Amino acid sequence: MSFPSPDPRARALAEARQAALVKPRGALGQLETVACWLAARQQRAIPKRVTPAITVFAADHGVARSAVSAYPQSVTAQMLASLTSGGAAISVLARTIDAPLTIVDVGVATNAPPPPGVRNERIAPGTRDITLEPAMTLEQARQALATGARYAASMIERGADLLIAGEIGIGNTTSSACIVAAALGTDPERVVGHGSGISTEQRARKVEVVRQALARCQDRSDGVTLLAELGGFEIGAMAGLYLEAARAGIPCVLDGFISSAAALIACRIDERVREWLLASHLSCEQGHAAVLEELRLEPLIKCGLRLGEGTGAALAVPMIQAAIRLHAEMATFAEAGVSDSV
Amino acid sequence: MSFPSPDPRARALAEARQAALVKPRGALGQLETVACWLAARQQRAIPKRVTPAITVFAADHGVARSAVSAYPQSVTAQMLASLTSGGAAISVLARTIDAPLTIVDVGVATNAPPPPGVRNERIAPGTRDITLEPAMTLEQARQALATGARYAASMIERGADLLIAGEIGIGNTTSSACIVAAALGTDPERVVGHGSGISTEQRARKVEVVRQALARCQDRSDGVTLLAELGGFEIGAMAGLYLEAARAGIPCVLDGFISSAAALIACRIDERVREWLLASHLSCEQGHAAVLEELRLEPLIKCGLRLGEGTGAALAVPMIQAAIRLHAEMATFAEAGVSDSV
Repeated sequence: MSFPSPDPRARALAEARQAALVKPRGALGQLETVACWLAARQQRAIPKRVTPAITVFAADHGVARSAVSAYPQSVTAQMLASLTSGGAAISVLARTIDAPLTIVDVGVATNAPPPPGVRNERIAPGTRDITLEPAMTLEQARQALATGARYAASMIERGADLLIAGEIGIGNTTSSACIVAAALGTDPERVVGHGSGISTEQRARKVEVVRQALARCQDRSDGVTLLAELGGFEIGAMAGLYLEAARAGIPCVLDGFISSAAALIACRIDERVREWLLASHLSCEQGHAAVLEELRLEPLIKCGLRLGEGTGAALAVPMIQAAIRLHAEMATFAEAGVSDSV
Repeated sequence: MSFPSPDPRARALAEARQAALVKPRGALGQLETVACWLAARQQRAIPKRVTPAITVFAADHGVARSAVSAYPQSVTAQMLASLTSGGAAISVLARTIDAPLTIVDVGVATNAPPPPGVRNERIAPGTRDITLEPAMTLEQARQALATGARYAASMIERGADLLIAGEIGIGNTTSSACIVAAALGTDPERVVGHGSGISTEQRARKVEVVRQALARCQDRSDGVTLLAELGGFEIGAMAGLYLEAARAGIPCVLDGFISSAAALIACRIDERVREWLLASHLSCEQGHAAVLEELRLEPLIKCGLRLGEGTGAALAVPMIQAAIRLHAEMATFAEAGVSDSV
């Protein structure tokens, strides 16, 4: 795969502009960094307002049978209907930021067709139980990645220049904790959280489930293998979306823990993806901070979100648009006739 | 002064609604808290979209002569012009959130009239040097508070139901550090920061300046005295705005360190003000975290801002609006036909 590189010249021009704007240097913190980051990727000294698009991938997890969630597996399919009817959190936030929302079933555990408004890209009706066997075949892992890539390409073709991937999938914080523990070589205790809101006892059980899956899966040689071993389909699709966006030179905004686990898979497949990722928020799901540190990304928001669906990423879009407007519309010291620092 | 109380019944209804929405309980973190907090203050189970208004108060500080800032005192007056011409950061953010921006000179150190577009409410041409004498008389302190209150009342009369106060004033992080150290009874080392971007050596000098002012001022008996002793006029106006908004039952969004120092003054005058304050962001100005802790407020954003002007508060408005929309527009488990937690 060939990847474009951010433009160092646009970045330098953007940084020079930030230094000339009427404010103490660095006083807008990460808003300055984000504006310069986007300048380099849009190859313009003054980045233009972004046009976001959101894709939510839904899939089920065999490991959900091990009671790792506060909700039964059937909730994945039920939530899909809620997304299409506009009542899910991400539906509301998509309207708030005026972004199209595409909903894709990549592997919900049902034989019924997905509800109207949901794209049917089902790879299988849920993954296998990762404590017993690989989540999916290598072929299915490649299919999940390709599906995500296809949706990225489609969004970009329709004019989006900032992609958000979200997910729905009962059990997917367990799958993500496995991926993160494996990729970071860290103990499950550090990266297993309360997910959808399980008790301390259930969390202790979830740590054991993650240990079992990791003990079973010894082959962590590459990103596709990691995905096939530990799942899930929606995580693979998100990773594929990140890869394709980077290949096309389009930035993505990460969401929370699961999204970041997908980013780890994508970076295992090609490290250059990292250059095209922005962090939105720091989730209170344990382990998220460790992944962001590994990816060397700084979140903008810290308000205790742990919902997924892409909600944190959508919430960051107004801040990103504000960063762009500040960069474009603020006066320079010279224009404003203000003395620069002594 | 009589203060309205938040409505416990609206709050309980809002909390019940949050518990019924299609998401794990608490998964929207502080967005849930903010929605319920506003419900109690608007006395509605489902709060309506807020209408923000921003007032920026500008004033100079005698202590600026002690080289506590990276900028000369004349920058306060110059920045006022930049605010009216729309090129300051807060001008851009006011447009972004569609909020009216009122600019008030409460004590800039010049004999020239303020530029067109700036309200002239000058109490004196800057405060006195707090290392040598009180910043202002008690009468001037009351005048600053009354001016802020008058602008709050005017914004509310014109339909605003969420007030933001910002500030411009070279030297005002020094004045704020004095107020915070005095109010919290803490060592200046803990609350003196780099302000507009001073060096480590300049910061050490600033700590000494704060120590001198605190050693001089032994009377910290009440909020008005604290304001008169340690300044400044814009801090007093912000405190007055917070007091009047609370009295009228209208919430305010705090900005950064200086805004929080003003909130401390307001709370010293009447502790019930705290019930009407929301925190927007955690500034990287040292000491801000300590003030928010004292006020028992949780910020929503943490992205390294340290600009003032009301910028952090304005940046939080889209998150507050999103919290309201999520609360109002998300479906309940029953409406969506989704199983609640097992």
